[in-house]
Amino acid sequence: MPKTATAPKPATGPGRPRDAEVDRKALQAAIELYAELGWAKFTLDAVARRAGIGKAAIYRRWPARDRLVADAMKAALLPPEAVIDTGTLREDLRALARSTMDHYLGPYGLAGLRLHVEARAHPGLFAELAGGIRHTRALQARAIVRHAIARGELGEQASPALILDTLLGGLLTHVLATPEEPRPEMTARSSRHVEDITAFVLTAAIAIYPPAG
Amino acid sequence: MPKTATAPKPATGPGRPRDAEVDRKALQAAIELYAELGWAKFTLDAVARRAGIGKAAIYRRWPARDRLVADAMKAALLPPEAVIDTGTLREDLRALARSTMDHYLGPYGLAGLRLHVEARAHPGLFAELAGGIRHTRALQARAIVRHAIARGELGEQASPALILDTLLGGLLTHVLATPEEPRPEMTARSSRHVEDITAFVLTAAIAIYPPAG
Repeated sequence: MPKTATAPKPATGPGRPRDAEVDRKALQAAIELYAELGWAKFTLDAVARRAGIGKAAIYRRWPARDRLVADAMKAALLPPEAVIDTGTLREDLRALARSTMDHYLGPYGLAGLRLHVEARAHPGLFAELAGGIRHTRALQARAIVRHAIARGELGEQASPALILDTLLGGLLTHVLATPEEPRPEMTARSSRHVEDITAFVLTAAIAIYPPAG
Repeated sequence: MPKTATAPKPATGPGRPRDAEVDRKALQAAIELYAELGWAKFTLDAVARRAGIGKAAIYRRWPARDRLVADAMKAALLPPEAVIDTGTLREDLRALARSTMDHYLGPYGLAGLRLHVEARAHPGLFAELAGGIRHTRALQARAIVRHAIARGELGEQASPALILDTLLGGLLTHVLATPEEPRPEMTARSSRHVEDITAFVLTAAIAIYPPAG
Protein backbone atom coordinates (compact mmCIF):
# COMPACT_ATOMS: atom_id res chain seq x y z
CA MET A 1 0.00 0.00 0.00
CA PRO A 2 1.45 3.42 -0.89
CA LYS A 3 2.60 5.53 2.01
CA THR A 4 0.07 8.28 1.39
CA ALA A 5 -2.72 5.79 1.94
CA THR A 6 -1.43 4.71 5.36
CA ALA A 7 -0.90 8.12 6.97
CA PRO A 8 -1.46 7.81 10.72
CA LYS A 9 -4.56 9.36 12.20
CA PRO A 10 -3.95 12.95 13.32
CA ALA A 11 -2.84 13.28 16.94
CA THR A 12 -5.66 15.71 17.65
CA GLY A 13 -9.21 16.17 16.52
CA PRO A 14 -12.19 13.86 16.47
CA GLY A 15 -11.54 10.30 15.48
CA ARG A 16 -8.25 9.98 17.34
CA PRO A 17 -7.99 6.82 19.41
CA ARG A 18 -9.22 7.15 22.99
CA ASP A 19 -5.88 5.88 24.33
CA ALA A 20 -3.89 8.70 22.74
CA GLU A 21 -5.95 11.33 24.54
CA VAL A 22 -5.57 9.53 27.88
CA ASP A 23 -1.84 9.25 27.28
CA ARG A 24 -1.53 12.92 26.42
CA LYS A 25 -3.40 14.02 29.56
CA ALA A 26 -1.41 11.64 31.76
CA LEU A 27 1.97 12.76 30.40
CA GLN A 28 1.03 16.43 30.78
CA ALA A 29 -0.17 15.97 34.37
CA ALA A 30 2.92 13.88 35.18
CA ILE A 31 5.43 16.50 34.06
CA GLU A 32 3.54 19.26 35.90
CA LEU A 33 3.37 17.26 39.13
CA TYR A 34 6.98 16.22 38.89
CA ALA A 35 8.03 19.87 38.47
CA GLU A 36 5.96 20.93 41.49
CA LEU A 37 6.61 18.03 43.86
CA GLY A 38 9.73 16.20 42.82
CA TRP A 39 10.20 12.46 42.70
CA ALA A 40 9.75 11.65 46.40
CA LYS A 41 6.14 12.85 46.44
CA PHE A 42 5.18 11.83 42.90
CA THR A 43 2.33 9.27 42.81
CA LEU A 44 0.20 7.68 40.09
CA ASP A 45 -2.94 8.58 42.06
CA ALA A 46 -2.03 12.26 42.03
CA VAL A 47 -1.43 12.06 38.26
CA ALA A 48 -4.88 10.50 37.76
CA ARG A 49 -6.50 13.28 39.82
CA ARG A 50 -4.63 16.07 38.05
CA ALA A 51 -5.33 14.59 34.61
CA GLY A 52 -8.98 13.99 35.43
CA ILE A 53 -8.83 10.38 34.27
CA GLY A 54 -9.39 7.08 36.04
CA LYS A 55 -6.65 5.46 38.08
CA ALA A 56 -7.22 2.17 36.23
CA ALA A 57 -6.30 3.79 32.91
CA ILE A 58 -3.06 5.08 34.39
CA TYR A 59 -2.10 1.82 36.10
CA ARG A 60 -2.93 -0.23 32.97
CA ARG A 61 -0.56 1.85 30.89
CA TRP A 62 2.14 2.55 33.55
CA PRO A 63 2.17 -0.10 36.29
CA ALA A 64 4.95 1.78 38.13
CA ARG A 65 5.49 5.48 38.64
CA ASP A 66 9.08 5.42 37.38
CA ARG A 67 7.95 4.44 33.88
CA LEU A 68 5.39 7.25 33.74
CA VAL A 69 7.77 9.94 34.93
CA ALA A 70 10.41 8.70 32.48
CA ASP A 71 7.96 8.79 29.55
CA ALA A 72 6.72 12.26 30.56
CA MET A 73 10.24 13.63 30.79
CA LYS A 74 11.28 12.05 27.51
CA ALA A 75 8.29 13.69 25.80
CA ALA A 76 8.85 17.10 27.38
CA LEU A 77 12.59 17.42 27.95
CA LEU A 78 14.63 15.58 25.36
CA PRO A 79 16.03 18.38 23.21
CA PRO A 80 15.47 18.09 19.46
CA GLU A 81 18.37 16.32 17.82
CA ALA A 82 18.50 18.93 15.07
CA VAL A 83 22.02 20.27 14.65
CA ILE A 84 22.34 24.05 14.92
CA ASP A 85 24.29 25.18 11.85
CA THR A 86 23.67 28.79 10.83
CA GLY A 87 27.03 29.37 9.17
CA THR A 88 28.77 31.44 11.89
CA LEU A 89 29.88 30.67 15.42
CA ARG A 90 28.18 33.80 16.76
CA GLU A 91 24.80 32.87 15.28
CA ASP A 92 25.12 29.24 16.33
CA LEU A 93 25.86 30.24 19.95
CA ARG A 94 23.03 32.79 19.88
CA ALA A 95 20.56 30.18 18.58
CA LEU A 96 21.64 27.71 21.25
CA ALA A 97 21.38 30.37 23.99
CA ARG A 98 17.95 31.45 22.73
CA SER A 99 16.51 27.92 22.72
CA THR A 100 18.03 27.22 26.15
CA MET A 101 16.57 30.42 27.62
CA ASP A 102 13.17 29.62 26.09
CA HIS A 103 13.31 26.19 27.71
CA TYR A 104 14.18 27.54 31.18
CA LEU A 105 11.44 30.17 31.01
CA GLY A 106 8.92 27.75 29.49
CA PRO A 107 6.49 25.32 31.09
CA TYR A 108 9.03 22.48 31.45
CA GLY A 109 12.06 24.43 32.63
CA LEU A 110 11.42 23.61 36.27
CA ALA A 111 11.00 19.90 35.52
CA GLY A 112 14.31 19.89 33.67
CA LEU A 113 16.14 21.54 36.58
CA ARG A 114 14.63 19.05 38.99
CA LEU A 115 15.68 16.16 36.81
CA HIS A 116 19.33 17.15 36.92
CA VAL A 117 19.24 17.75 40.67
CA GLU A 118 17.43 14.47 41.35
CA ALA A 119 19.69 12.52 39.01
CA ARG A 120 22.31 13.11 41.71
CA ALA A 121 20.01 11.99 44.54
CA HIS A 122 18.63 8.98 42.61
CA PRO A 123 21.22 8.02 39.99
CA GLY A 124 19.77 4.58 39.34
CA LEU A 125 16.39 6.04 38.50
CA PHE A 126 17.23 9.05 36.35
CA ALA A 127 20.72 8.30 35.06
CA GLU A 128 19.57 7.01 31.66
CA LEU A 129 17.29 9.96 30.96
CA ALA A 130 19.70 12.61 32.24
CA GLY A 131 22.42 10.87 30.24
CA GLY A 132 20.29 11.03 27.08
CA ILE A 133 19.70 14.76 27.50
CA ARG A 134 23.39 15.33 28.20
CA HIS A 135 24.36 13.26 25.17
CA THR A 136 22.10 15.21 22.81
CA ARG A 137 23.39 18.54 24.16
CA ALA A 138 26.99 17.37 23.90
CA LEU A 139 26.46 16.39 20.26
CA GLN A 140 25.03 19.85 19.52
CA ALA A 141 27.92 21.53 21.29
CA ARG A 142 30.59 19.48 19.56
CA ALA A 143 29.00 20.12 16.16
CA ILE A 144 28.97 23.90 16.72
CA VAL A 145 32.64 23.96 17.74
CA ARG A 146 33.69 21.52 15.00
CA HIS A 147 32.05 23.68 12.35
CA ALA A 148 33.70 26.81 13.78
CA ILE A 149 37.12 25.12 13.60
CA ALA A 150 36.44 24.02 10.02
CA ARG A 151 35.54 27.61 9.04
CA GLY A 152 38.70 28.94 10.71
CA GLU A 153 36.83 30.80 13.45
CA LEU A 154 38.46 28.82 16.27
CA GLY A 155 41.77 27.00 16.61
CA GLU A 156 42.05 23.24 16.27
CA GLN A 157 42.47 22.85 20.03
CA ALA A 158 39.11 24.43 20.89
CA SER A 159 37.19 22.36 23.43
CA PRO A 160 33.41 22.59 23.49
CA ALA A 161 33.16 22.05 27.24
CA LEU A 162 34.19 25.48 28.58
CA ILE A 163 32.33 27.34 25.84
CA LEU A 164 29.10 25.48 26.45
CA ASP A 165 29.36 25.27 30.25
CA THR A 166 29.79 29.03 30.58
CA LEU A 167 27.08 29.87 28.01
CA LEU A 168 24.41 27.45 29.24
CA GLY A 169 25.42 27.65 32.91
CA GLY A 170 25.44 31.43 32.77
CA LEU A 171 21.86 31.37 31.48
CA LEU A 172 20.83 28.89 34.15
CA THR A 173 22.36 30.94 36.94
CA HIS A 174 20.70 34.08 35.58
CA VAL A 175 17.29 32.40 35.63
CA LEU A 176 17.78 30.80 39.06
CA ALA A 177 19.20 33.98 40.55
CA THR A 178 16.25 36.12 39.52
CA PRO A 179 13.67 36.33 42.30
CA GLU A 180 10.11 35.42 41.40
CA GLU A 181 8.77 38.99 41.44
CA PRO A 182 10.64 40.44 38.48
CA ARG A 183 10.41 37.26 36.38
CA PRO A 184 7.95 38.72 33.84
CA GLU A 185 10.36 41.60 33.42
CA MET A 186 13.25 39.16 33.01
CA THR A 187 11.33 37.30 30.33
CA ALA A 188 10.84 40.56 28.47
CA ARG A 189 14.53 41.41 28.78
CA SER A 190 15.71 37.90 27.93
CA SER A 191 16.53 38.77 24.32
CA ARG A 192 18.99 41.42 25.50
CA HIS A 193 20.52 38.98 27.96
CA VAL A 194 20.93 36.30 25.29
CA GLU A 195 22.85 38.83 23.16
CA ASP A 196 25.08 39.92 26.05
CA ILE A 197 26.05 36.47 27.25
CA THR A 198 26.62 35.23 23.71
CA ALA A 199 29.02 38.13 23.06
CA PHE A 200 30.81 37.51 26.38
CA VAL A 201 31.37 33.81 25.73
CA LEU A 202 32.24 34.30 22.05
CA THR A 203 34.90 36.83 23.01
CA ALA A 204 36.47 34.44 25.49
CA ALA A 205 36.30 31.50 23.07
CA ILE A 206 38.11 33.36 20.27
CA ALA A 207 40.73 34.76 22.68
CA ILE A 208 41.39 31.41 24.39
CA TYR A 209 41.25 29.27 21.22
CA PRO A 210 42.52 31.63 18.52
CA PRO A 211 42.47 30.33 14.94
CA ALA A 212 45.87 29.47 13.52
CA GLY A 213 47.63 32.11 11.43
CA MET B 1 31.17 40.17 85.26
CA PRO B 2 34.19 40.24 82.90
CA LYS B 3 33.70 38.65 79.53
CA THR B 4 36.30 35.94 80.08
CA ALA B 5 34.28 34.62 83.01
CA THR B 6 31.10 34.28 80.95
CA ALA B 7 32.49 32.46 77.91
CA PRO B 8 29.79 30.21 76.47
CA LYS B 9 30.13 26.50 76.99
CA PRO B 10 31.91 24.81 74.11
CA ALA B 11 29.61 23.56 71.34
CA THR B 12 31.03 20.06 71.66
CA GLY B 13 32.37 17.91 74.45
CA PRO B 14 30.91 16.87 77.78
CA GLY B 15 29.01 19.49 79.69
CA ARG B 16 27.32 21.03 76.67
CA PRO B 17 23.61 21.60 77.11
CA ARG B 18 21.42 18.71 76.08
CA ASP B 19 19.38 20.98 73.78
CA ALA B 20 22.38 21.97 71.68
CA GLU B 21 23.14 18.35 70.85
CA VAL B 22 19.51 17.66 69.93
CA ASP B 23 19.49 20.77 67.76
CA ARG B 24 22.70 19.78 66.00
CA LYS B 25 21.42 16.28 65.21
CA ALA B 26 18.06 17.61 64.04
CA LEU B 27 19.58 20.24 61.75
CA GLN B 28 22.00 17.71 60.26
CA ALA B 29 19.24 15.16 59.63
CA ALA B 30 16.99 17.87 58.20
CA ILE B 31 19.49 19.08 55.59
CA GLU B 32 20.27 15.49 54.55
CA LEU B 33 16.62 14.57 54.17
CA TYR B 34 15.81 17.76 52.33
CA ALA B 35 18.64 17.05 49.87
CA GLU B 36 17.42 13.50 49.29
CA LEU B 37 13.66 14.03 49.27
CA GLY B 38 12.89 17.66 48.57
CA TRP B 39 10.26 19.75 50.26
CA ALA B 40 7.14 17.84 49.23
CA LYS B 41 8.19 14.69 51.09
CA PHE B 42 9.99 16.35 54.00
CA THR B 43 8.41 15.52 57.39
CA LEU B 44 9.32 16.15 61.04
CA ASP B 45 8.79 12.45 61.78
CA ALA B 46 11.39 11.45 59.22
CA VAL B 47 13.83 13.95 60.71
CA ALA B 48 13.29 12.48 64.19
CA ARG B 49 13.93 8.96 62.85
CA ARG B 50 17.04 9.97 60.91
CA ALA B 51 18.42 11.96 63.83
CA GLY B 52 17.66 9.19 66.33
CA ILE B 53 15.89 11.56 68.68
CA GLY B 54 12.33 11.71 69.98
CA LYS B 55 9.56 13.33 67.96
CA ALA B 56 8.55 15.38 70.99
CA ALA B 57 11.95 17.06 71.11
CA ILE B 58 11.63 18.01 67.44
CA TYR B 59 8.07 19.26 67.69
CA ARG B 60 8.83 21.27 70.85
CA ARG B 61 11.61 23.13 69.10
CA TRP B 62 10.08 23.33 65.59
CA PRO B 63 6.28 23.11 65.64
CA ALA B 64 6.17 23.28 61.81
CA ARG B 65 8.43 21.71 59.21
CA ASP B 66 9.02 24.98 57.36
CA ARG B 67 10.85 26.47 60.36
CA LEU B 68 13.10 23.43 60.69
CA VAL B 69 14.04 23.28 57.03
CA ALA B 70 14.71 27.03 57.04
CA ASP B 71 16.97 26.79 60.10
CA ALA B 72 18.81 23.81 58.63
CA MET B 73 19.41 25.57 55.34
CA LYS B 74 20.52 28.77 57.04
CA ALA B 75 23.06 26.80 59.06
CA ALA B 76 24.35 24.80 56.08
CA LEU B 77 23.95 27.01 53.04
CA LEU B 78 24.32 30.70 53.83
CA PRO B 79 27.73 31.56 52.41
CA PRO B 80 30.16 33.29 54.75
CA GLU B 81 29.88 37.05 54.45
CA ALA B 82 33.65 37.41 54.28
CA VAL B 83 34.68 39.52 51.30
CA ILE B 84 37.17 37.87 48.95
CA ASP B 85 40.00 40.36 48.48
CA THR B 86 43.33 38.82 47.46
CA GLY B 87 44.69 41.83 45.61
CA THR B 88 44.16 40.68 41.99
CA LEU B 89 41.07 39.94 39.91
CA ARG B 90 42.48 36.59 38.81
CA GLU B 91 43.07 35.39 42.37
CA ASP B 92 39.72 36.73 43.57
CA LEU B 93 37.87 34.86 40.80
CA ARG B 94 39.90 31.73 41.44
CA ALA B 95 39.10 31.84 45.18
CA LEU B 96 35.40 32.31 44.46
CA ALA B 97 35.42 29.47 41.91
CA ARG B 98 37.26 27.19 44.33
CA SER B 99 34.86 27.79 47.22
CA THR B 100 31.86 27.37 44.89
CA MET B 101 33.21 24.07 43.52
CA ASP B 102 33.92 22.83 47.04
CA HIS B 103 30.33 23.64 48.00
CA TYR B 104 28.83 21.81 45.01
CA LEU B 105 30.98 18.74 45.62
CA GLY B 106 30.48 18.85 49.39
CA PRO B 107 27.77 17.38 51.61
CA TYR B 108 25.34 20.30 51.16
CA GLY B 109 25.73 20.95 47.45
CA LEU B 110 22.64 18.93 46.59
CA ALA B 111 20.53 20.73 49.20
CA GLY B 112 21.61 24.08 47.79
CA LEU B 113 20.65 23.09 44.25
CA ARG B 114 17.28 21.86 45.45
CA LEU B 115 16.67 25.10 47.30
CA HIS B 116 17.10 27.20 44.17
CA VAL B 117 14.89 24.85 42.12
CA GLU B 118 12.19 24.71 44.79
CA ALA B 119 12.30 28.45 45.39
CA ARG B 120 10.67 28.64 41.94
CA ALA B 121 8.04 26.00 42.79
CA HIS B 122 7.33 27.41 46.28
CA PRO B 123 8.31 31.08 46.24
CA GLY B 124 6.39 31.95 49.41
CA LEU B 125 8.24 29.32 51.38
CA PHE B 126 11.84 29.70 50.22
CA ALA B 127 11.98 33.21 48.81
CA GLU B 128 13.51 34.77 51.93
CA LEU B 129 16.25 32.18 52.29
CA ALA B 130 17.09 32.01 48.58
CA GLY B 131 17.08 35.80 48.58
CA GLY B 132 19.53 35.89 51.48
CA ILE B 133 21.93 33.54 49.71
CA ARG B 134 21.61 35.54 46.49
CA HIS B 135 22.20 38.80 48.36
CA THR B 136 25.39 37.54 50.04
CA ARG B 137 26.71 36.23 46.71
CA ALA B 138 25.84 39.48 44.95
CA LEU B 139 27.72 41.47 47.59
CA GLN B 140 30.80 39.26 47.10
CA ALA B 141 30.56 39.62 43.33
CA ARG B 142 30.15 43.38 43.40
CA ALA B 143 33.10 43.76 45.78
CA ILE B 144 35.38 41.71 43.53
CA VAL B 145 34.48 43.74 40.45
CA ARG B 146 34.59 47.08 42.33
CA HIS B 147 38.10 46.32 43.59
CA ALA B 148 39.22 45.31 40.09
CA ILE B 149 37.91 48.61 38.69
CA ALA B 150 39.68 50.55 41.47
CA ARG B 151 42.97 48.78 40.65
CA GLY B 152 42.55 49.55 36.94
CA GLU B 153 42.11 45.89 35.95
CA LEU B 154 38.63 46.45 34.51
CA GLY B 155 36.89 49.47 33.00
CA GLU B 156 34.40 51.57 34.96
CA GLN B 157 31.49 50.06 33.07
CA ALA B 158 32.24 46.47 34.17
CA SER B 159 29.10 44.71 35.38
CA PRO B 160 29.46 41.86 37.88
CA ALA B 161 26.47 39.95 36.52
CA LEU B 162 27.91 38.42 33.34
CA ILE B 163 31.28 37.68 34.97
CA LEU B 164 29.73 35.90 37.93
CA ASP B 165 26.92 34.17 36.04
CA THR B 166 29.34 32.57 33.59
CA LEU B 167 31.90 31.63 36.26
CA LEU B 168 29.48 30.18 38.82
CA GLY B 169 27.00 28.86 36.25
CA GLY B 170 29.80 27.21 34.30
CA LEU B 171 30.88 25.37 37.45
CA LEU B 172 27.30 24.35 38.22
CA THR B 173 26.73 23.02 34.71
CA HIS B 174 30.01 21.12 34.86
CA VAL B 175 29.00 19.43 38.11
CA LEU B 176 25.42 18.71 36.98
CA ALA B 177 26.58 17.47 33.57
CA THR B 178 29.00 14.93 34.98
CA PRO B 179 27.37 11.52 35.36
CA GLU B 180 27.58 9.88 38.76
CA GLU B 181 30.15 7.25 37.79
CA PRO B 182 33.15 9.48 37.14
CA ARG B 183 32.36 11.90 39.98
CA PRO B 184 35.33 10.84 42.15
CA GLU B 185 37.54 11.46 39.14
CA MET B 186 35.89 14.85 38.61
CA THR B 187 36.56 15.77 42.23
CA ALA B 188 40.21 14.93 41.75
CA ARG B 189 40.37 16.98 38.55
CA SER B 190 38.39 19.88 39.99
CA SER B 191 41.48 22.00 40.68
CA ARG B 192 42.39 21.90 37.00
CA HIS B 193 38.83 22.79 36.03
CA VAL B 194 38.77 25.74 38.45
CA GLU B 195 41.93 27.08 36.78
CA ASP B 196 40.56 26.63 33.26
CA ILE B 197 37.20 28.26 33.82
CA THR B 198 38.75 31.13 35.79
CA ALA B 199 41.12 31.86 32.89
CA PHE B 200 38.25 31.64 30.39
CA VAL B 201 36.03 34.10 32.26
CA LEU B 202 38.88 36.44 33.16
CA THR B 203 39.87 36.68 29.49
CA ALA B 204 36.32 37.57 28.48
CA ALA B 205 35.93 40.08 31.33
CA ILE B 206 39.09 42.02 30.41
CA ALA B 207 38.25 41.96 26.69
CA ILE B 208 34.63 43.05 27.18
CA TYR B 209 35.31 45.61 29.94
CA PRO B 210 38.82 46.89 29.11
CA PRO B 211 40.37 49.34 31.54
CA ALA B 212 40.54 52.93 30.30
CA GLY B 213 43.76 54.08 28.62
